[in-house]
Amino acid sequence: MPETPGYVDLGFARVDADRRRRCGFPEVIYCERKTPGEVAAIARVVLERDGVLLATRASRAHYEAVVEEEKGAIFHERACCVTCEHVPLPRLTGRVAVVCAGTSDLPVAEEAAVTLELLGSTVERIADVGVAGIHRLLGERDRLEACVVIIVVAGMEGALPSAVAGLVSKPVIAVPTSVGYGASFGGLAALLGMLNSCGSGVTVVNIDNGFGAAYAAATINRLMSANAGTSSAP
Amino acid sequence: MPETPGYVDLGFARVDADRRRRCGFPEVIYCERKTPGEVAAIARVVLERDGVLLATRASRAHYEAVVEEEKGAIFHERACCVTCEHVPLPRLTGRVAVVCAGTSDLPVAEEAAVTLELLGSTVERIADVGVAGIHRLLGERDRLEACVVIIVVAGMEGALPSAVAGLVSKPVIAVPTSVGYGASFGGLAALLGMLNSCGSGVTVVNIDNGFGAAYAAATINRLMSANAGTSSAP
Amino acid sequence: MPETPGYVDLGFARVDADRRRRCGFPEVIYCERKTPGEVAAIARVVLERDGVLLATRASRAHYEAVVEEEKGAIFHERACCVTCEHVPLPRLTGRVAVVCAGTSDLPVAEEAAVTLELLGSTVERIADVGVAGIHRLLGERDRLEACVVIIVVAGMEGALPSAVAGLVSKPVIAVPTSVGYGASFGGLAALLGMLNSCGSGVTVVNIDNGFGAAYAAATINRLMSANAGTSSAP
Amino acid sequence: MPETPGYVDLGFARVDADRRRRCGFPEVIYCERKTPGEVAAIARVVLERDGVLLATRASRAHYEAVVEEEKGAIFHERACCVTCEHVPLPRLTGRVAVVCAGTSDLPVAEEAAVTLELLGSTVERIADVGVAGIHRLLGERDRLEACVVIIVVAGMEGALPSAVAGLVSKPVIAVPTSVGYGASFGGLAALLGMLNSCGSGVTVVNIDNGFGAAYAAATINRLMSANAGTSSAP
Amino acid sequence: MPETPGYVDLGFARVDADRRRRCGFPEVIYCERKTPGEVAAIARVVLERDGVLLATRASRAHYEAVVEEEKGAIFHERACCVTCEHVPLPRLTGRVAVVCAGTSDLPVAEEAAVTLELLGSTVERIADVGVAGIHRLLGERDRLEACVVIIVVAGMEGALPSAVAGLVSKPVIAVPTSVGYGASFGGLAALLGMLNSCGSGVTVVNIDNGFGAAYAAATINRLMSANAGTSSAP
Amino acid sequence: MPETPGYVDLGFARVDADRRRRCGFPEVIYCERKTPGEVAAIARVVLERDGVLLATRASRAHYEAVVEEEKGAIFHERACCVTCEHVPLPRLTGRVAVVCAGTSDLPVAEEAAVTLELLGSTVERIADVGVAGIHRLLGERDRLEACVVIIVVAGMEGALPSAVAGLVSKPVIAVPTSVGYGASFGGLAALLGMLNSCGSGVTVVNIDNGFGAAYAAATINRLMSANAGTSSAP
Amino acid sequence: MPETPGYVDLGFARVDADRRRRCGFPEVIYCERKTPGEVAAIARVVLERDGVLLATRASRAHYEAVVEEEKGAIFHERACCVTCEHVPLPRLTGRVAVVCAGTSDLPVAEEAAVTLELLGSTVERIADVGVAGIHRLLGERDRLEACVVIIVVAGMEGALPSAVAGLVSKPVIAVPTSVGYGASFGGLAALLGMLNSCGSGVTVVNIDNGFGAAYAAATINRLMSANAGTSSAP
Amino acid sequence: MPETPGYVDLGFARVDADRRRRCGFPEVIYCERKTPGEVAAIARVVLERDGVLLATRASRAHYEAVVEEEKGAIFHERACCVTCEHVPLPRLTGRVAVVCAGTSDLPVAEEAAVTLELLGSTVERIADVGVAGIHRLLGERDRLEACVVIIVVAGMEGALPSAVAGLVSKPVIAVPTSVGYGASFGGLAALLGMLNSCGSGVTVVNIDNGFGAAYAAATINRLMSANAGTSSAP
Repeated sequence: MPETPGYVDLGFARVDADRRRRCGFPEVIYCERKTPGEVAAIARVVLERDGVLLATRASRAHYEAVVEEEKGAIFHERACCVTCEHVPLPRLTGRVAVVCAGTSDLPVAEEAAVTLELLGSTVERIADVGVAGIHRLLGERDRLEACVVIIVVAGMEGALPSAVAGLVSKPVIAVPTSVGYGASFGGLAALLGMLNSCGSGVTVVNIDNGFGAAYAAATINRLMSANAGTSSAP
Repeated sequence: MPETPGYVDLGFARVDADRRRRCGFPEVIYCERKTPGEVAAIARVVLERDGVLLATRASRAHYEAVVEEEKGAIFHERACCVTCEHVPLPRLTGRVAVVCAGTSDLPVAEEAAVTLELLGSTVERIADVGVAGIHRLLGERDRLEACVVIIVVAGMEGALPSAVAGLVSKPVIAVPTSVGYGASFGGLAALLGMLNSCGSGVTVVNIDNGFGAAYAAATINRLMSANAGTSSAP
Repeated sequence: MPETPGYVDLGFARVDADRRRRCGFPEVIYCERKTPGEVAAIARVVLERDGVLLATRASRAHYEAVVEEEKGAIFHERACCVTCEHVPLPRLTGRVAVVCAGTSDLPVAEEAAVTLELLGSTVERIADVGVAGIHRLLGERDRLEACVVIIVVAGMEGALPSAVAGLVSKPVIAVPTSVGYGASFGGLAALLGMLNSCGSGVTVVNIDNGFGAAYAAATINRLMSANAGTSSAP
Repeated sequence: MPETPGYVDLGFARVDADRRRRCGFPEVIYCERKTPGEVAAIARVVLERDGVLLATRASRAHYEAVVEEEKGAIFHERACCVTCEHVPLPRLTGRVAVVCAGTSDLPVAEEAAVTLELLGSTVERIADVGVAGIHRLLGERDRLEACVVIIVVAGMEGALPSAVAGLVSKPVIAVPTSVGYGASFGGLAALLGMLNSCGSGVTVVNIDNGFGAAYAAATINRLMSANAGTSSAP
Repeated sequence: MPETPGYVDLGFARVDADRRRRCGFPEVIYCERKTPGEVAAIARVVLERDGVLLATRASRAHYEAVVEEEKGAIFHERACCVTCEHVPLPRLTGRVAVVCAGTSDLPVAEEAAVTLELLGSTVERIADVGVAGIHRLLGERDRLEACVVIIVVAGMEGALPSAVAGLVSKPVIAVPTSVGYGASFGGLAALLGMLNSCGSGVTVVNIDNGFGAAYAAATINRLMSANAGTSSAP
Repeated sequence: MPETPGYVDLGFARVDADRRRRCGFPEVIYCERKTPGEVAAIARVVLERDGVLLATRASRAHYEAVVEEEKGAIFHERACCVTCEHVPLPRLTGRVAVVCAGTSDLPVAEEAAVTLELLGSTVERIADVGVAGIHRLLGERDRLEACVVIIVVAGMEGALPSAVAGLVSKPVIAVPTSVGYGASFGGLAALLGMLNSCGSGVTVVNIDNGFGAAYAAATINRLMSANAGTSSAP
Repeated sequence: MPETPGYVDLGFARVDADRRRRCGFPEVIYCERKTPGEVAAIARVVLERDGVLLATRASRAHYEAVVEEEKGAIFHERACCVTCEHVPLPRLTGRVAVVCAGTSDLPVAEEAAVTLELLGSTVERIADVGVAGIHRLLGERDRLEACVVIIVVAGMEGALPSAVAGLVSKPVIAVPTSVGYGASFGGLAALLGMLNSCGSGVTVVNIDNGFGAAYAAATINRLMSANAGTSSAP
Repeated sequence: MPETPGYVDLGFARVDADRRRRCGFPEVIYCERKTPGEVAAIARVVLERDGVLLATRASRAHYEAVVEEEKGAIFHERACCVTCEHVPLPRLTGRVAVVCAGTSDLPVAEEAAVTLELLGSTVERIADVGVAGIHRLLGERDRLEACVVIIVVAGMEGALPSAVAGLVSKPVIAVPTSVGYGASFGGLAALLGMLNSCGSGVTVVNIDNGFGAAYAAATINRLMSANAGTSSAP
């Protein structure tokens, strides 16, 4: 397997071997439209170099191809993720909240939670606190404020991040989901709602992109932890 | 001026002379793309038949053409409406709330309020209670619950109707506004947000259509009043 | 099963135990993307507290999970709803019309009708009166005017609510459906048509959202009934 | 001025000199984004060859450039058209109806009417018969049925063509207009409404394209007239 | 089976019994989202009253339900239509061309052709003459000009109607198809192309709506035939 | 001026007096669609309570109304912001980079920079490093890595955040701008590009929303600073 | 099989027999929505006349119908193409690069590569060099510059063509792919990104249209080769 | 003025001093949203280094700022370009055709022509040959085939590139324009039409982007010329 400086060339893929040094975390495998064989091959390279694996949007078939070689691989069914931790990443000091508006948003929230845990964060899960019953959210204010970052997952009109951002002083990362029907247009309504949030400082990721929100949150948490004198860092 | 049964034909317009009998309220003039002269001519027919006038989306020029002939006409500047009440419509018993999310939504809210008042309702105005400072809304719950219908006017992500609908037992009519920028796309974000509201039973009108919401609310209020033994009705 | 004041926490869901007091009706279960087990668990809590159940967008599998524990549960196949009435909600005095433009719109109309009946209203069903044969509608004017609220369900160009609103004095709630092809874009054409209705006071709900229209209509009907000295109320 | 077989080359334009032979009517000038001088130059060529001129989307400046050379040119202000008839086109035997939904749609209707008259048709103008007062339309059924083709001009939800098509046996050509606001999106709502019409056989032209509808109607009328033993035709 | 004046009420459908008198052709059944049983029931009423049946968007299951009772019913597989002609409609004198741009557009073209034939027109089929090989079209000019109306079916960029309209003097009705991929967005590209056609007088129907184009063409052809002293008409 | 607990009620606005306690920063005034008088009145309340003012999307007229009463107010012309610092907010320890792709993106970048400085951050400005000349970006890697957060402002295809995110280990907040023409559709192309970024962990704000990105960055920077033992925090 | 001058008429298709003379390459078969039998029939005509076959978007069923008659036909599975070269097209002198951003873009890249090879070009394949790890691209600059044309295939935000265009002096043809999720909207994000590329001179083809890009590249390569004194050309 | 290796840093802009070496042509200035002073400052740097200037989307004010310092600067009014050629770029051997569909497309065509001439190509201008009069195009086939590349500029339905691509063997670059109204949606119809062209090998640039098409064409022409033994090259 030839290794050009900076990446490992598998022909169909160039595994970014330099990524952890540059960006702080090793490469993550996005499984959609990749064959199980391709995912397993990339997984092997990643584990050899970095000792830790995260594969998102994985089907059971992807998992089975990976676990055949790496016995320690785990399949997170609801989150559709495969993880493997030979050499776990450094633990970070802050907690990250993963809040979701409704039960139907849980798969996206779980993708975020699994990603966060693998990247070293402790996760605070808070489910089903949509704005139509705002008292369910208000009671959680202290638990939210105690976190370093808050990820808010919501479909339909995507109103929850605005309400959360108005309650706390921490960064809020919003994840629109494709939950809804009719004029939700596959999550477009929630996406536009979050981009137009009247809550200052809400930032947004792609529809159903729990991974992206978690990665961003982990980056912030690592900043904090580094500052606090702990591990991690590029 | 020929009068075919059911309408008065002005050539460029057929004034619906039968509307009040059928629908409970006389015809309302929508001024956009009509000349001041056309509006004044229609206004004369409406006032002669029904004794009460509402013209929406009116400019000052429209008003001036109307007031020249009808001295009692009034221009509501913020609402862009002209009204004239020779024979006021019957007073209705219930109150209607007009709630708006931000100061910038006031012109649309005023169009709703002016329409409601002309159609016989008492209006409860509640301004600037957007979800980013949810405590401002929670304090108004009793005032809202005391109304027959609640009109909620909001731009940006349009989240306010969901929060209101979760607090009260009254019908909520949502009006998206074109307030916002970038990906609000002229009110599309707020419109989609409201259509996808997780608050049960929220109904929606067109962007910036304060008049439409008010007309629907008046229809409901008249039902109530009729039931309570009062006036109005077809 | 812990009960925080105001809701029952099932981990994956927080059942809003306070909703009937605040909003007048108990919580309704939206089944899409929930597992049969989750729906059954929520159903149990709802029935225990409120004695009456409505689950929408339910598949037969959802129904079977519910009926296993609640023998009285009924599956409404065309409407895709599950209902169970241990303690029926108070009967309301007014009738609500559910009008639909074509035979293909019937499933959405049935979702509205089932919801209305559970929430205590008597339903007047009027099918297949689209504007392309306007005489079919004109003959129903008196039946429509005798109702408290009129729900109009239509796909394609969504023109029926405008025609109905021009005939009667009652509130009209329009439900666009995804019936159509080509440039109907999944109901977008009907939705835009209804939002731009030239019929004053038409309000609109999301595409295929028969439930939402019915809930709003029930809220109005309850207002009336309360006023008339009957039951219900927050 | 060089004349290649089939067209006259003005450098910035190639006037289609063969069009009347091929298509039955001479070339029509679309003025938008053309300078007054360019329009006048093309007008001269067209009048020299065919003796009759129609220029659409013309401003007063375009008219003035044309009339300077062609004294007989006429400016139709509401329709924004310039016409000149040195050698009028053959009169056609059938009448064409131009129906519009509201007063605001008149400019588009006038573009259609002016075009039809120049192309030899007699026009039946019927204004302000929108579906919100359907009785205004029903009274015109016989007048409509007596025409060869019916052009229906409407903005907002664009519902009128469906209602007309359900009443008569003649071809209906629908013209959506940009009249409306908010979610009319510049006429998109009316356009989609008309394309999804439940009225069989409605055909549609571009938003605000009164000319296109009239041209199509004239083509049909000419067919009829030719058949009836009269003039015209290629 | 109750018969209110003007329609036959089947509960789930109101068959428009007056349509042939008003519009010249009997009601056509649109099968999508109707059950085979519903289609068969409506078919029986239509055949009883008018002796001729057209059902579009029919599956084989729809056909089988119909043919069980009406032995003479025929299934047109490519066109997805069911027809039955106990009392054929009057033959019309003119020919109608059905032109299509590519082989993939044939199903839509066949829906148009089957409709035209049932409604009494003779059809001229011309396949695969897209603008990328314009010589294939030019050779057909005389055959096209000999028809009364020309239906042009095209997907992808939808350019063919413009080219045809520039060659002949007859009405051109354009049918965009959903043939294409990527940025054709289900036929939107072809639809917009046709609406913006530089060919004067092109009118357009919904995406894949071969039936609508044929119905409009038949209406025009009947005008002609009526004029020529033949049959048909209301 | 009445003061309900938690906000100051000006009639047309409710100034959120509790915001700094809850969210860490005082309320910011969004000037669009507010009159100069309204902005000045809100500004007075904010300055009285919190001693520091930021008004965004301000015109010179807004500034003049503010400065009449608050002599220390400053107008930032390129950024369209008004600031006033009687009691400056606590200085934060980290630097924030504001990177922009082209010269035309500078106004949005300046809105971000002015906001950041007012909220206590030191700003590192890096202009005109778009991906079409990637060497201009590569040379800035160390300067970027030395910051706590990186704001990337870009129009057109919005590709710069992906490239930046691949180079550094810090959180990247992307701001799409409306710079571009044709199919940029007012910034939609850049917005979609950024939401679909292949760079892990990029989060996005609304089109042209420099303020929102800066507010989010300041929230992160405050976390860090708090952690490092310094000032600020709720 | 009749042969009108310029094409062979199969009834359902007119095979453009003149295309190679006019355009330099024989007709290519687009298989989607064609039956295996239709594809095989067209293939026979093309091979008889030109000795070389390319069928794109082919399923295995299409291949099997072709290979039954033409033993030399080959199925390229990843590219979904069928080729057959009885008389190979002239070899061209230049190389064409096919670069792709990620492993998931490979099927589209392969459609391009197979097309290029059949049309006589030598292909340089470069996979997985997306902008999130820009060092992987920079190392390939010389290999890219040595080609005549560069095809860049990318999904998600479609940023790669801008980066490539900034590195080399050769024409860049961009192919957006439908790879991505959420707000990629089936490749729309990548398409808009590429159309708005800040890299001068990037041209774009339809989403997933590897064939189109390859055909354009081959046309350019043939120009070069012709110029260099070699074969090909019309 | 500091010069970092590879670019000249003006603070608000980094002029890419290395571009000609890498990409073959010097940097071009895009004037929109830049002040006249900024454009003049960048122009000075570009002229000093490369001796040749092209500024697109320039207003007269931009020109005046440039010409004050560079006496030889020329303003191309229709094309909105400023050019200055102290050291003209090498002449290329091939001709490039710039074809446009209608007179209204001329400004975009001129932007392309001015760019081509500055970059060393000879231009063949062919105006007003839209597909509605296809004979105007057919007569130009030989002139088109004699060019190296063909740029086709068209608005409305954007059908011309397909017709041209079917006639010749040369690369066709399509430029959609914003000419049109109603459902042209600012050029979207033409853009989608061109992307879905049935003419093989058509590539497309952004709406109204005459410059981009010309730059791509020049790149191809330079390839040819280099090959033919002439000048240019990186």
